[in-house]
Amino acid sequence: MKVAVLGFGTVGVGVFEMLGNAEGLEQGTVLVRPGKNDMAFKRTSIEEIVSDPEIWAVAEVMGGIEPAFSYAKEVLKAGKHFVTSNKALVAAKGIELSNLAYENNVGFLFSAACGGAVPILHNLSIARESDKILSISGILNGTTNYMLDSMQRLGLDYSEALKDAQRLGYAEADPTADVSGLDALRKIMLACAVSFDMLPTEGILNEGIENITSQDVKHFMSRGYTCRLMVKGGRTENSVYAYAEPVLFRESAPECSVLQNFNMACYEGLNSGRISIIGQGAGRYPTASAVLRDLSTILGGRKYMLRQNCKAVKAENDKLSQLYYVRLPESMASRIPAESADTENGVARLITKPLSVLKMHSLAAKIREEGGKIFFAAIGE
Amino acid sequence: MKVAVLGFGTVGVGVFEMLGNAEGLEQGTVLVRPGKNDMAFKRTSIEEIVSDPEIWAVAEVMGGIEPAFSYAKEVLKAGKHFVTSNKALVAAKGIELSNLAYENNVGFLFSAACGGAVPILHNLSIARESDKILSISGILNGTTNYMLDSMQRLGLDYSEALKDAQRLGYAEADPTADVSGLDALRKIMLACAVSFDMLPTEGILNEGIENITSQDVKHFMSRGYTCRLMVKGGRTENSVYAYAEPVLFRESAPECSVLQNFNMACYEGLNSGRISIIGQGAGRYPTASAVLRDLSTILGGRKYMLRQNCKAVKAENDKLSQLYYVRLPESMASRIPAESADTENGVARLITKPLSVLKMHSLAAKIREEGGKIFFAAIGE
Repeated sequence: MKVAVLGFGTVGVGVFEMLGNAEGLEQGTVLVRPGKNDMAFKRTSIEEIVSDPEIWAVAEVMGGIEPAFSYAKEVLKAGKHFVTSNKALVAAKGIELSNLAYENNVGFLFSAACGGAVPILHNLSIARESDKILSISGILNGTTNYMLDSMQRLGLDYSEALKDAQRLGYAEADPTADVSGLDALRKIMLACAVSFDMLPTEGILNEGIENITSQDVKHFMSRGYTCRLMVKGGRTENSVYAYAEPVLFRESAPECSVLQNFNMACYEGLNSGRISIIGQGAGRYPTASAVLRDLSTILGGRKYMLRQNCKAVKAENDKLSQLYYVRLPESMASRIPAESADTENGVARLITKPLSVLKMHSLAAKIREEGGKIFFAAIGE
Repeated sequence: MKVAVLGFGTVGVGVFEMLGNAEGLEQGTVLVRPGKNDMAFKRTSIEEIVSDPEIWAVAEVMGGIEPAFSYAKEVLKAGKHFVTSNKALVAAKGIELSNLAYENNVGFLFSAACGGAVPILHNLSIARESDKILSISGILNGTTNYMLDSMQRLGLDYSEALKDAQRLGYAEADPTADVSGLDALRKIMLACAVSFDMLPTEGILNEGIENITSQDVKHFMSRGYTCRLMVKGGRTENSVYAYAEPVLFRESAPECSVLQNFNMACYEGLNSGRISIIGQGAGRYPTASAVLRDLSTILGGRKYMLRQNCKAVKAENDKLSQLYYVRLPESMASRIPAESADTENGVARLITKPLSVLKMHSLAAKIREEGGKIFFAAIGE
């Protein structure tokens, strides 16, 4: 079956190559921008692709919402399967695209948008049919994991760690989506939608790693903690919780053995218990391998990850409480309900009383509004 | 779709319960031995099940080759899907059952036979369609992992660790299949068959943990090593390698964070890189969850894990060389090519020169034939 590829960047090249060796799949045309390349297999308009009866499916690996969203709609309306690695697209337009796919009886899968080669969405979508998924968590951003790992194991400071990640191609020139936690947050949104039929689009919270310093790292390492940027999602009574934030783990926790730019995705099933999957979360061939798996999955008869009853919901991040480690100016320390505090040179380091995620993120936002520099991280079990 | 269950022990009860809540599936009849139970949903003959037109699939969780094998053939010939948790059955008769399933155009899946809730076979069977699986490894026996973990972290001796495992239901009254490595070996045989279309039935090697002592544990822990019973499988030029043996890992290795009775299954894909899956390898609900996943998978259109070209092969365990840690009587130490040796009270502890798996297992077998007590473990990267 011929597969067209939209986008011919890092991942697109990998997808195109892998199509040459995959069972039941063949290289189709590739959409590139005008003037970019004139090799025979390339086309410059989506019309040529959707009107080609030989094209069975389209893999979109361009990123960004437009023109990917317009292209996706044309592909689905033309009765061709659509798979994508584009988490921004699916987080923003996933339900609309899913409905269109059902209407046209074609497949819509997006494994590569969450976890790269880590097949978490695929496994969630199968597991939920016979088990009840209770919660999901993970390290789903390789860039920030690489940076945190470099700061902790190699002693780099934040800007050195970022530069290293950029040099190795793990971080974009503009790293905002990664370091703010937004990229990871989008992935947990997708995992919630697949597992719970609820795509949290409001009330979601992301705290990234932009505010961590090498002093913070030294401080919590001296206490036996390792920091990871975690995402969490799960059921509440009427909705879901969904957020990204740094978490401190004791060194025996499995999260601490996720090094460099690896990802780890976990879920807790009522019957299966906790399942963790670890692998490469990004990169040409790992991400392409997830795109190809989606195509194989459609070929095998399974066409959807989102259910027809999936709906957008407001996340409830005020239901669970946990302790936080917080570093902020001594002058503002009284604003955070604390169990214990150390202060030195005008800087306070606190362990909070139990606070909800919403409460902690809101307190930090207010302190920042007033010009205070603050870093916080939940204390993992 | 109604599913009959063969066997109503630990796993059977779990499968039956889960069928009550799974999408698209329903509780069918249950086969129990005569006189065992007379509840309305139970039957005592396989004929009643295969002749019941309402039964869509049969889940076999009895264990053992007979009568499971005879029942499986009747089920498949009757045009009903067959899923099983029975690794002994699939290791011995998998190709024959698979051929019968293809002939009758019905499904034959056996996720629960390898890894319990850890969905390794399912993921291998999908991944291999678009990627090339290079190798597989893992901790696939929860009983021995629990025992090794107890010996290492709690300081128990072998017999205490075994008693504990039996008390908790992790080990059978006769623990031979677990502690000899045979149970784990059968699982890697299945993983090779799914990944490489080659079921290694000859030349396979298993060294278990029966010969480990608390002195061995102390000795390698003092050198920063943790011991795990590993299985490994992969491609050779014309066949596969497949074996089980203890391996010593440096404490930063991910294998060391697999504690208690958890399992970890890994594979290396040419494009995906290394993927590791961790979860409960046994127990009522974890194992039942894997049986249910197979039924969902068939419902979704994917019916086979073994290909029609899968064949029995002789494993080649003489292609790769590695270093081993060996403890044996000082009087026999010269029989092992060693890089270094410590001797104390008549006991020698060696690090070998690079040896193939076949060579090391053969040397140990000869030494045992002559009455020598020997423990060995590969030294992991």
